[in-house]
Amino acid sequence: MNADFNGLYYVQFVSKSSKLIMKVDRIVYTARTKYQFVELVEFEEFGLSLILDGLVQSTVADEHIYHEALVHPAMVAHPNPRSVLIIGGGEGATLREVLKHPSVEKAVMVDIDGELVEIAKRYLEPMHRGSFNDPRSEVVIMDGKEYIRKTDRVFDVVILDLTDPYSSEIARDLYSEPFYRELKKILSQNGIVVTQAGCSFYFEDAYDLALNSLKSTFRIVREYGNWVPSFGYLINYIVASDTLDPAAMDPERIDRLLRERRVETRYYSGDVHQSLFKTPALRNTYVKGKK
Amino acid sequence: MNADFNGLYYVQFVSKSSKLIMKVDRIVYTARTKYQFVELVEFEEFGLSLILDGLVQSTVADEHIYHEALVHPAMVAHPNPRSVLIIGGGEGATLREVLKHPSVEKAVMVDIDGELVEIAKRYLEPMHRGSFNDPRSEVVIMDGKEYIRKTDRVFDVVILDLTDPYSSEIARDLYSEPFYRELKKILSQNGIVVTQAGCSFYFEDAYDLALNSLKSTFRIVREYGNWVPSFGYLINYIVASDTLDPAAMDPERIDRLLRERRVETRYYSGDVHQSLFKTPALRNTYVKGKK
Amino acid sequence: MNADFNGLYYVQFVSKSSKLIMKVDRIVYTARTKYQFVELVEFEEFGLSLILDGLVQSTVADEHIYHEALVHPAMVAHPNPRSVLIIGGGEGATLREVLKHPSVEKAVMVDIDGELVEIAKRYLEPMHRGSFNDPRSEVVIMDGKEYIRKTDRVFDVVILDLTDPYSSEIARDLYSEPFYRELKKILSQNGIVVTQAGCSFYFEDAYDLALNSLKSTFRIVREYGNWVPSFGYLINYIVASDTLDPAAMDPERIDRLLRERRVETRYYSGDVHQSLFKTPALRNTYVKGKK
Amino acid sequence: MNADFNGLYYVQFVSKSSKLIMKVDRIVYTARTKYQFVELVEFEEFGLSLILDGLVQSTVADEHIYHEALVHPAMVAHPNPRSVLIIGGGEGATLREVLKHPSVEKAVMVDIDGELVEIAKRYLEPMHRGSFNDPRSEVVIMDGKEYIRKTDRVFDVVILDLTDPYSSEIARDLYSEPFYRELKKILSQNGIVVTQAGCSFYFEDAYDLALNSLKSTFRIVREYGNWVPSFGYLINYIVASDTLDPAAMDPERIDRLLRERRVETRYYSGDVHQSLFKTPALRNTYVKGKK
Repeated sequence: MNADFNGLYYVQFVSKSSKLIMKVDRIVYTARTKYQFVELVEFEEFGLSLILDGLVQSTVADEHIYHEALVHPAMVAHPNPRSVLIIGGGEGATLREVLKHPSVEKAVMVDIDGELVEIAKRYLEPMHRGSFNDPRSEVVIMDGKEYIRKTDRVFDVVILDLTDPYSSEIARDLYSEPFYRELKKILSQNGIVVTQAGCSFYFEDAYDLALNSLKSTFRIVREYGNWVPSFGYLINYIVASDTLDPAAMDPERIDRLLRERRVETRYYSGDVHQSLFKTPALRNTYVKGKK
Repeated sequence: MNADFNGLYYVQFVSKSSKLIMKVDRIVYTARTKYQFVELVEFEEFGLSLILDGLVQSTVADEHIYHEALVHPAMVAHPNPRSVLIIGGGEGATLREVLKHPSVEKAVMVDIDGELVEIAKRYLEPMHRGSFNDPRSEVVIMDGKEYIRKTDRVFDVVILDLTDPYSSEIARDLYSEPFYRELKKILSQNGIVVTQAGCSFYFEDAYDLALNSLKSTFRIVREYGNWVPSFGYLINYIVASDTLDPAAMDPERIDRLLRERRVETRYYSGDVHQSLFKTPALRNTYVKGKK
Repeated sequence: MNADFNGLYYVQFVSKSSKLIMKVDRIVYTARTKYQFVELVEFEEFGLSLILDGLVQSTVADEHIYHEALVHPAMVAHPNPRSVLIIGGGEGATLREVLKHPSVEKAVMVDIDGELVEIAKRYLEPMHRGSFNDPRSEVVIMDGKEYIRKTDRVFDVVILDLTDPYSSEIARDLYSEPFYRELKKILSQNGIVVTQAGCSFYFEDAYDLALNSLKSTFRIVREYGNWVPSFGYLINYIVASDTLDPAAMDPERIDRLLRERRVETRYYSGDVHQSLFKTPALRNTYVKGKK
Repeated sequence: MNADFNGLYYVQFVSKSSKLIMKVDRIVYTARTKYQFVELVEFEEFGLSLILDGLVQSTVADEHIYHEALVHPAMVAHPNPRSVLIIGGGEGATLREVLKHPSVEKAVMVDIDGELVEIAKRYLEPMHRGSFNDPRSEVVIMDGKEYIRKTDRVFDVVILDLTDPYSSEIARDLYSEPFYRELKKILSQNGIVVTQAGCSFYFEDAYDLALNSLKSTFRIVREYGNWVPSFGYLINYIVASDTLDPAAMDPERIDRLLRERRVETRYYSGDVHQSLFKTPALRNTYVKGKK
């Protein structure tokens, strides 16, 4: 009996013509918030995981690969990050990584979905690790665009931990030039911005939208990427600043900085930093009908 | 974004080259008992469901189609069924249907998996409807073959509500002639036996094993079948006796009997009885390489 | 290595929350015609098959189960069917069954998709069996609705072998009262109409549209159904007439008629006729949130 | 109608609990050779592709990412590679990359499956690009282990382009110490060996077998990796030598070497070389039942 493949699976969108189907051990919690469908499941291979609208956001097995790569390159590039703004990042893992840097006095996390944040607080301790309770943390439930327009704060580092640019029209706005121009107004003089940018191989247009919009807005724009197993692809990031260049930092300097700041990581290091910035943003050049 | 199909699914074995994938709303309970992997899930389209080793056994949406067809043809064919033996039938729905016949004084259900029966009692009330608590019910946790060898009781009706003959070697034994010969010894003079027999279209060999074994053992053997949506196929049943012939009963007589016995059903009726016995046991005559 | 399930599969829509995935041996031909996406594949379990817009229409393993059930009940109910109209039925198998009745002088098949008919002629001989070349056959490439408005012919039997009512708005029109009223105008005095009607269990609304529309238009309306393995469900049919009642015919009379007409079938018989009309049109009464 | 996901798909094994399902446009050719099941398909997103026993080996969209990474690091590390041995590599793309280095006088490709090589020659020109016809090429149809024992040739570079270590017992042998010891005997003094090593994240044990076996056999062992989209994961490679260290080469030197040798690549460069060797071999540290 060919029954090996029976059972409970999650079917995840990877690209317009690929799906990743992953064995599920347990459903921990599901809810339809005002903004999205939230599923907490335990995958056989990845453990406790957060899924939003059918896309895996974080799993305990590999979220550190994503969150450490998203946060630390910008944080180490800034000589003294005191105020940090995170837009998105509902599960609190981006906040967790930011707070590892002792210079941080204020970390504001703005997420539009208050219900998601409550769910994360209750169920995702292995991801946020108590970061919501750190006295330096401030969680604001608000549309990120609105927050940026209204705040009178200025930030050294801004981290855009958003859903993918191709997932909705609203999401696209957060990867476009007008948004980055607004964002620049609340950056401090040596400020630096980083965003996840989807997968350049499968979603080249969305990636180029973000890349070109950042290039029109900032003087120094650097691309990097790493494979996150549960995403089914290599995810790309873009970091931008008028003055700071993370790609120019050598491994030894980064390792020294991490030691000085007593930042402990599971994945990120000086060598990994270099691997991230050396990883090319792949494009799919296959065109149907062409040899 | 081609995201329509994302989400949580159950992949169910239908045949050696087909799978049915069904949307899941919720996992209610899972356990690995001594004998099998038990999953209780809520399917979007079928509600609360019992799955054993990757095969859907019962869903609240359609289990009555299966259980009423399994139980009532044999029960109405017997003029006065007082003692009934059920082998298998862990969720208690076969027992529920048997107890609807007021002549029944004793209904013994023998299931090898005591843990499954406890799970059913606790979680599957919409299926057993309290039948385990009926004073006429007796649940015996034992191997069915052993029970048949050891019991000194005699039964008017025996209902074999077993896992499919192709699911394991042990299961095959319960569809073979030696087993039916043992079974005949504990049948009363006008006794009648019924078994589910898998799907003749997809599992012709297993079906023929049961059919031929019953034909070698009993004088009157009748085949019937009906489509059970959540199984992904039309399931076949075989009923056998030396004296009783359910296929010869006309619809009016059955409807009158059901009224006299005050048996209320959701699906079964005189007309449905006739449809069951008129439904041919399909065979797949496609042979690869042949036109 | 859990590799049993690797390989080439067809993912078929069964209902809004179920898919049937079937092992494919070979792709024979694919084309996007003006009207639909046509795929000819060889399934491991079903052999050569026609798929339109992702829905299996016919496989050599089981198309006779569908086409014999669609055609013969109406044909035997009519005492002397001379002129027959088929709307749809591109693969020519409905035509093949119609032509088995020797009284037929003219069988007009109207299909909107001329490319599909050419593909069928070339690749689907095991299905049409040369029926397109029968001198009694006439193939008209035209919208069925338009043909019915324009023709001055009158037909004894009309067979609607259409794509499912839920597959598009255009398809819905062919299952509605205005269409049936038009159709009635070209029926002879003892005329009879039959349509496939999708699956009442999974698509109750579409089924009821067809059923109620026929009931508003004809005096005698009978429902029947049978399980077609490669469809993943039991398919329902509705036959309607002002004078003829196929459900009232007994098996012996049908078997005699088939012998007199020298109609040879693989599946259909007097007993199967009765099984078809006794098979209840199932409804899914499961409502989420209700026990 | 939720029909977006209908159609023809390939279900590919990624890990014991994940599958990648990829849309297929066309089947080009399939054959069961003496050694394996060979499928040539056109994926919607990846074009013409070679699949062996259910595992994607090469697609026109991304095979250069795999083959350039497999071949060039060892080839540039060797100052003057004249004789090269490839074991496996049936589609001829590894050979194609090797032949780009003008110092190569002899490139012997040993593949156990002669039928596969013939299929590649006929259907996979976009992959081999005529490399089989190069006068420096010699194709030997033989078991690689046997070839190594029997040959009296000596090689500067050996490239192991094998199926994955977890795919069979026979495959495992080709990743173990006895094999590497045999291999070392036919390496020239400054010889270098490279092997693909599966995915360390999903198949840690198999990866460690290869890694530890190479470490026991060679003085310098370097790990590298890159994401190959159609594999569904980041693939790891291991390169080993007693004298040469590809990881120690700086990007400028590599770019200069490529220019001098007139090696043209689509993906590989000095910077990519560095990214490869900086990419960490990921391990999945998630253990079920642990927080």
